[in-house]
Amino acid sequence: MTTAVADIGLIGLAVMGQNLILNMNDKGFVVCAFNRTVSKVDHFLENEAKGTKVVGAHSVAELCAKLKRPRKVILLVQAGKAVDSFIDQLIPHMEKGDIIIDGGNSHYPDSIRRTKEVEAKGLLFVGTGVSGGEEGARYGPSLMPGGSDAAWPAIKEIFQATAAQVHGDPCCDWVGENGAGHYVKMVHNGIEYGDMQLIAEAYDILKRGLGIDESEIADIFEKWNKGVLDSFLIEITYNILRYKDTDGIPMVRKILDAAGQKGTGKWTAIEALDAGSPVTLIGEAVFARCLSALKSERIRASKSISGPQRETFKGDKQQFIDDLEQALYASKIISYTQGFMLMRETAKVQGWNLNYGGIAGMWRGGCIIKSVFLADITKAFVKTKDLESLLFDKFFNDAIHKAQPGWRRIVAQAVLWGIPTPAFSTALAFLDGYRSEVVPANMIQAQRDYFGAHTFRVLPGYESSLLKAGTDIHINWTGRGGNVSASSYNA
Amino acid sequence: MTTAVADIGLIGLAVMGQNLILNMNDKGFVVCAFNRTVSKVDHFLENEAKGTKVVGAHSVAELCAKLKRPRKVILLVQAGKAVDSFIDQLIPHMEKGDIIIDGGNSHYPDSIRRTKEVEAKGLLFVGTGVSGGEEGARYGPSLMPGGSDAAWPAIKEIFQATAAQVHGDPCCDWVGENGAGHYVKMVHNGIEYGDMQLIAEAYDILKRGLGIDESEIADIFEKWNKGVLDSFLIEITYNILRYKDTDGIPMVRKILDAAGQKGTGKWTAIEALDAGSPVTLIGEAVFARCLSALKSERIRASKSISGPQRETFKGDKQQFIDDLEQALYASKIISYTQGFMLMRETAKVQGWNLNYGGIAGMWRGGCIIKSVFLADITKAFVKTKDLESLLFDKFFNDAIHKAQPGWRRIVAQAVLWGIPTPAFSTALAFLDGYRSEVVPANMIQAQRDYFGAHTFRVLPGYESSLLKAGTDIHINWTGRGGNVSASSYNA
Repeated sequence: MTTAVADIGLIGLAVMGQNLILNMNDKGFVVCAFNRTVSKVDHFLENEAKGTKVVGAHSVAELCAKLKRPRKVILLVQAGKAVDSFIDQLIPHMEKGDIIIDGGNSHYPDSIRRTKEVEAKGLLFVGTGVSGGEEGARYGPSLMPGGSDAAWPAIKEIFQATAAQVHGDPCCDWVGENGAGHYVKMVHNGIEYGDMQLIAEAYDILKRGLGIDESEIADIFEKWNKGVLDSFLIEITYNILRYKDTDGIPMVRKILDAAGQKGTGKWTAIEALDAGSPVTLIGEAVFARCLSALKSERIRASKSISGPQRETFKGDKQQFIDDLEQALYASKIISYTQGFMLMRETAKVQGWNLNYGGIAGMWRGGCIIKSVFLADITKAFVKTKDLESLLFDKFFNDAIHKAQPGWRRIVAQAVLWGIPTPAFSTALAFLDGYRSEVVPANMIQAQRDYFGAHTFRVLPGYESSLLKAGTDIHINWTGRGGNVSASSYNA
Repeated sequence: MTTAVADIGLIGLAVMGQNLILNMNDKGFVVCAFNRTVSKVDHFLENEAKGTKVVGAHSVAELCAKLKRPRKVILLVQAGKAVDSFIDQLIPHMEKGDIIIDGGNSHYPDSIRRTKEVEAKGLLFVGTGVSGGEEGARYGPSLMPGGSDAAWPAIKEIFQATAAQVHGDPCCDWVGENGAGHYVKMVHNGIEYGDMQLIAEAYDILKRGLGIDESEIADIFEKWNKGVLDSFLIEITYNILRYKDTDGIPMVRKILDAAGQKGTGKWTAIEALDAGSPVTLIGEAVFARCLSALKSERIRASKSISGPQRETFKGDKQQFIDDLEQALYASKIISYTQGFMLMRETAKVQGWNLNYGGIAGMWRGGCIIKSVFLADITKAFVKTKDLESLLFDKFFNDAIHKAQPGWRRIVAQAVLWGIPTPAFSTALAFLDGYRSEVVPANMIQAQRDYFGAHTFRVLPGYESSLLKAGTDIHINWTGRGGNVSASSYNA
């Protein structure tokens, strides 16, 4: 009989799994590695894991036999069927209190379902967000675990030791019930899509607008990285811009401009639409990737649709670059404002008690969106636990006011140049709509009542015997069509 | 035994149902009316339907007994459970070849399922889009039927006679297999959301930007309605603007600026995200309604967030209004371009053979988005059956080029004024991205490969031994982290 030697097991030896194992090994934990294609286990032990305390298993049974109780097994496999299949394979070899951890990018409704199913078998389930990619997994990721509350004490030590540390604080804490961990990871990824799109737009304006080259653009991003934009994504952006191919040409120039996506950004946008939460920036970021993927159609379009003549920029270049920094910063503030708005909304629906400051804290290190910025968000929620909107926090409120003039100049200039800035623009449109006491939706309501008898409410201050407060009002605008209100017809 | 006297039955006596019955009665068909709350049947017969050939039924059994064969029953009930429930109630009273027609706003996947289920019982199913609201239903709606092909010959006469007629052509034709009818209606509604948002933005710019009043704005919309924007929604917009309350104040001013929605616009945006189709304008239109609904939060925001000083407009006012007309027209062209892009994509996936010119034709009259514009779309598809994009059709291509300068001036001015134009802006960003041979997605791909080993493709022209065409390339950007490509990690 094999003896239980390992502190934790991990299934799935793709890059993330391998790196996470080596990371946990560095922190002093004995990890047992398993992979569906078993040969990969031996290859891993003889190569990347050579000389470590990592042990391997050639079957799920062997894996479970080698684990100390309560058993903890992390799945880092493709989200979907593979996760359910491994859960089914693990259950017969596990005992009451053992913990199955899904570290893949599962959709949170699946984690809600799996928590129920696994708990029904007397076991515990954790769905955890793991962010940071290769680097994060290897040297300290951001971990966002949620699921069976009883599992947290048993995994807390390994998780917090393995996670990134920022000023001694681990970028890992218990997020909440059932699917909360994967939900927060999903929003994180959506925000990541937004941050990347914002950087791409700034890069495009510098390249096509100012017409400067990669090395100069790199210097600008490096300078920005010393200020309010200090973040992992800005850092890798100037590293990328400086990476030259063997022929001396910047590699980025040789990369096909068709962005891929794996779905979590899309999930966030769909979630926002379902929740009725105006998370416009992530939506535009996802759509921008879709448009980029239409490469051949864009090539045809570029030949048949012309834009404005783009004369070389004659204004104050440094002022323009400073404006651009403000545009990027302000748009980022809007994106996070929208993201936290969405989490608030879903937490209400799901009955989750999310710790928003803690979530920003988990994102401060290890993950793709790690930034100094997130510390300011944590501060805002520490100051006001039930902060309605980031824009109501003095720090961000001041920042948005300071950024507005430059931000508006950038968007206006991009529009006149014919350079697309869907994310900068939608962020500004959101701000202007959000700070508008009255938006033109009264016209939309009038139209809906006119053609579909969908009714409207009276604007406070205009109540009358006909226009009663708090009641659905229908007007016979045309003098025809009767006064029945719509019920079966939707528009 | 009751004799079969009616040509068709209709269940659901809300405004749409009542009006559709009266419309079919006018066209010479005998309709049998039924409603879950049976008292409503008698009330309808004694009032709205008094003096018509309409008959009533007090049970589903009686309804079916009164129908000529093959029986045809239209459901105009709340989408969802009610539809399935009435289908279940109808089936026992129907015979081979009888037809159940769902005229509600069902989600097209439900219509795909119901076609299967009803056909399995030897009956036929039709899911039909019905558009036009109260007015359309009463005097001639746009009908978009799809489902069991065998049902079309049996319902064609009633449907095409009941539908709106434009120059003698009925705004009704067979759309396609199973869910195609409700799918096309869904896209129609999404486009309707877009059209309404565009009008709302134009209204807002005239009101808050130029500071002119409802009557002057009405005159502008009426003038526009004589040109390329000639449409039902523009027409009702100036009618609305001129509708005064008893105290002489324009009613629109008294309507709460919080837009409602019933879901079909949202479905279109979600569909677009799932299909990877950049239907950005409908997305922004849906989100704009979400933002408008946050009325109390916006009031608080309006007090804590200020925008630019909005000095009165000093330029050429008529020129500005003409620019605004072009901005609205061009944005509308983009919205329909995106909508047809989405239908193309889904038709591919569903294996539908959609007749795009015919679809535009069905929308020319009767429905909410009816316009002269749609005739130009039909022309474009008649000219080029497999037109890749509306923007490649000479008519729309010329229009987009003509509109660009004014459109850009409007968006830039709105940005500087601080008036939100999410739809105008996203349409312009789409155009500028679409006509860009190179977009900055190369940076996004570099970032994804840097942090997640997601690989990239080489830009044609830069192929090398390292950068092979058609292969997924991963670079070890950091010199750390190995060269394994990501498989389980998604970002």
